[in-house]
Amino acid sequence: MKMQERLELAARAATAMLSTDAAIKNAALERISHALESDRASIFDANLKDIETARAEGLAAPLLKRLAFNEKKLAEVRSGISDLIAMPNPVGRVLEARLLDEGLELRRISCPIGLIAMIFESRPDALVQMASLGVKSGNAIVLKGGSEARESNAALANLIANAGEEAGLPQHWLTLLETREEIGELLKYDQFVDLVIPRGSKEFVARIKATSRIPVLGHSDGVCHVYVHEDADPAMATSIVLDSKTQYPATCNAAEVLLVNAQFAARGLVSLLRALSAAGVVLDVCPRTAEILRGANNQGAPAVPCTLKTDDDWSVEYLDFRMAVKFVDSLDEAIAHINRYGSGHTDSIVCESREVARRFLNEVDSSSVYHNASTRFADGYRYGLGAEVGIATGKLHARGPMGLQGLLTYKWLLEGQGHIVDDYATGKKHFIHKDLPLNDALAGDLVSED
Amino acid sequence: MKMQERLELAARAATAMLSTDAAIKNAALERISHALESDRASIFDANLKDIETARAEGLAAPLLKRLAFNEKKLAEVRSGISDLIAMPNPVGRVLEARLLDEGLELRRISCPIGLIAMIFESRPDALVQMASLGVKSGNAIVLKGGSEARESNAALANLIANAGEEAGLPQHWLTLLETREEIGELLKYDQFVDLVIPRGSKEFVARIKATSRIPVLGHSDGVCHVYVHEDADPAMATSIVLDSKTQYPATCNAAEVLLVNAQFAARGLVSLLRALSAAGVVLDVCPRTAEILRGANNQGAPAVPCTLKTDDDWSVEYLDFRMAVKFVDSLDEAIAHINRYGSGHTDSIVCESREVARRFLNEVDSSSVYHNASTRFADGYRYGLGAEVGIATGKLHARGPMGLQGLLTYKWLLEGQGHIVDDYATGKKHFIHKDLPLNDALAGDLVSED
Repeated sequence: MKMQERLELAARAATAMLSTDAAIKNAALERISHALESDRASIFDANLKDIETARAEGLAAPLLKRLAFNEKKLAEVRSGISDLIAMPNPVGRVLEARLLDEGLELRRISCPIGLIAMIFESRPDALVQMASLGVKSGNAIVLKGGSEARESNAALANLIANAGEEAGLPQHWLTLLETREEIGELLKYDQFVDLVIPRGSKEFVARIKATSRIPVLGHSDGVCHVYVHEDADPAMATSIVLDSKTQYPATCNAAEVLLVNAQFAARGLVSLLRALSAAGVVLDVCPRTAEILRGANNQGAPAVPCTLKTDDDWSVEYLDFRMAVKFVDSLDEAIAHINRYGSGHTDSIVCESREVARRFLNEVDSSSVYHNASTRFADGYRYGLGAEVGIATGKLHARGPMGLQGLLTYKWLLEGQGHIVDDYATGKKHFIHKDLPLNDALAGDLVSED
Repeated sequence: MKMQERLELAARAATAMLSTDAAIKNAALERISHALESDRASIFDANLKDIETARAEGLAAPLLKRLAFNEKKLAEVRSGISDLIAMPNPVGRVLEARLLDEGLELRRISCPIGLIAMIFESRPDALVQMASLGVKSGNAIVLKGGSEARESNAALANLIANAGEEAGLPQHWLTLLETREEIGELLKYDQFVDLVIPRGSKEFVARIKATSRIPVLGHSDGVCHVYVHEDADPAMATSIVLDSKTQYPATCNAAEVLLVNAQFAARGLVSLLRALSAAGVVLDVCPRTAEILRGANNQGAPAVPCTLKTDDDWSVEYLDFRMAVKFVDSLDEAIAHINRYGSGHTDSIVCESREVARRFLNEVDSSSVYHNASTRFADGYRYGLGAEVGIATGKLHARGPMGLQGLLTYKWLLEGQGHIVDDYATGKKHFIHKDLPLNDALAGDLVSED
C-alpha cells in the first residue's frame, strides 16, 4: 500500500477513535496484555532473530542489552499496561466551565490530538508503551522503531494491532513503518498526521524538526546544569552533582555543566571535583577553576586532574563521563548563563536559601527547574505520568516529560437553547460569565455511548 | 536599529519579565490606562491623520469605521484594561502537584511564553488590547498593525511602552514594527521569537504559516457549519441559522454551509431558506435541495430564489451574504462532511435529542462545537476570556478563542532536600507519587519578591 493510502486509513481511524468508548479502550489494553502473555514464544523468537543479526553485525553490548525483549521486559510492559488501565479516562475531562448566560453553558474539555507519529530507538518495549499510551489517550498511532529491532517490532505491532481491533478499536488504529525512508515520506502528509514525536540522536531529531511541516514535540539537546550557590551544603552539592552526572551519563537529563559560585569555592569545590574525578569524570574547567585547583601559588600539578577549557562553547552535550565546570560570581550570572547556553531541558540549583531558590525556579526559562534535587529526576515515570513518550523542550503545548496529557488537546463545547448572538449585540441580553464548577461526571457522560 | 538587534533586546526584556512582580504588571496597566486618558488629544490627532489619508486614498466606509479611535473606543479599551487588572495573576498558577517522595515535591506551573509577535489588522484599539494582554501574561511583545493606522499605532505604542517602563516593566518590553517587509525579516529570528499570532486575510495568514520557522497560532479559514437535524425545532433552526449567517457575515465565525437532514426538509426547509433569502442571503444549493424548492413535480420556479451548486467544493469561505446548502441523510454523514470539508473553527448542531447532540459534540473534530447556539458565539469576549488575541484552529497548545491562557505555557518545578536518582534506581527508596492539593498560594509565593 502507498504511504498516502496508509496514512489516509490511519487518519480515518483517528476520527473513529473519537467515538470509541473508554470501556473499549480499557478492554483493548486488557486484550493486548493478554495477547503479549499468550504469544510470548513468538515474540521472544522474533527478538532472538534481531539479537543474532545484531551480534553478527557487531552491535555493542549496551545496545544489545537495550534490544533484548525477555521475560523481565514482558513483565514490565504488562505492569505498565495494568497501570494505564487503572488510570482514570483522560479524554473528556472538563478543564474549564462557564455559564455564559441562562441556559448557555461553555466547557473546555480534553480530547485526543488525532494521528500521532512516534519515532523511537531500538528498544522494542518502547513500542508496547507507546501503543498503549495511544490507546488510553484515544489517538491513532504510526510507529517507527529502530531497524535493529525490525523482527521484534513487526511481531509486537502485529499482535497489538490485532488484539486492539478484536476488542473494538477501529481498523488501522496502529500503523507500523519499517524503513527510514518511510519517515521522510510520512513527514510530507501534514493533512493526515497531527503530531510527530521523534526520539533519537540530536542530529536525527534536529533534521526532522527542520524538514517537517507537521508540528514536532521533543528535544534534540539536553544541556543540563547544576548550579552550586554560595550557601550550598557541600555534602549535598557533591551528592547531587555526582548523581546528575554519573548515574547514567548517556541520557538527556544527565548534567553537562557545573556552575559554581565563587563564594562556594573555598568551602567545597576541591572535594566536589575530587569526587567527580574519582567517579571517572573528566573535567573541562574554566581558567578560574583551574587556578583554584592549582592552589594559591598558581604552580604545580592541580589538586584534581583536569583539562583547561579555553573555548567559549558552553552548549556541549557530552553524554559521557565528562563535565564542564565554570565559575560564576552571582545567582544572576548563573541564571543568565543557563538561559543563554542551556537547552531548556532541566536545570538544578543547590542552595539553602528559599529566596535564592525561588528566584532560580522563577527566572530559569527551562521546562524543568529543580531545587536541591538531581537533574536525573526529569522522566515521565519518576514524575508519576504513568509512562513517557518524550521530553519536550519547546514552550508550546507540552513541556518536559510528556505522558498521557501530552497526547491530548482540548475543544470548547457550547450548549444553548437556541441562543443567538444578535440578542447580545443589540443589548437585549447580557452575558453572565459565571464560572461553573468543573464537573468531570458531565464529561464522562459526553463520551459515553448511552 | 537592525532587526536582529531589536529582537535581541526584546528577547532580553522577555527574560526580565519573568522576574517582574504581578503588582508591577498591574501598576503598569494602571499607568497605561491613565496615560491613554491624559494623552487622548495627541492620540486623536494621530488617528485623524490616518483617517484623512485613508479617505483621500478612497478607503471603503466600513474600513474607515474600523480605523477610527475616538472617545467611545478609548472608553472601551480603558474598560478592558480595568477588567484585566481585576483578573487574578495568571502566571505561577499550580496546574498539577505531586509528592514524589518524602520532601520531594513536583509542581507544574503556568509561566509566560516569552517573546510573542502579534500581527493584526487596521483597528488601532487592537494594539491596546494586545499590549495589555502581553503585560498581564508577562510576555514581551512585538506588534505590527495595519499600515492604514500607522500614525495611530505609533502614537499608541510609544505612549504604552513608556507608561509601562515608568511603572517598572523592563526596557524594550514592547516593540512596534512599522512596515510589512519587517514581518518577513522577523520570521527569520526563531532564536528570539517564541510565537507568532497573525490576524488578517486567509492568504496572509497562510503565507506566514508556510514561511515561518517560529510556531504560529491562529487560523486562515473559517468554514463554519450549522447542521439541522431531523428533530430540530424549525423556529429555533431558522433563528440560529439566520444569526450564524447574517449577524456579521464578514467574520470568521459566520456560518458558510448549512447541512440539512433529509427528514427535516418536509418540516421546515422551505421556510428556513425563505427567511435566509429574505435577509438577503444568496443560496448555493445542492441538487436535492433544488428539487425540494421546485416542488414535487420538479417544474417551474423554485419556492425560494437559489443557484444550483454543481461543483464539489464545500470548503468555500464566502464572508458575505451567501451560503451553501446541502442535504445529508444522517448524523454520521453530517459529521463526516464537517470533518472533511470544515476548517476546525466552529460548528453547530440544532437538535432536540441529547444523545444526538452528544455524538455531534464528541465526534466533530473542531476547536469549538455547539449545540443549539449560533456559531457567532466563538469569540474571546463572549467566552469570558477577557479579551481575544486570535482564534486557533490547530490542535496543539491553544484551540479556539485565545485569551490570557493562550499566552502562557508551563514549567515543572521540583523541590527536594538533596534527593538523588541513584537511591531510586538501586531500590533504596521508592516513589510515593501522591497528588498534592493544588495550592495557588504557593505559586503566588513563587513569583513574589519577598
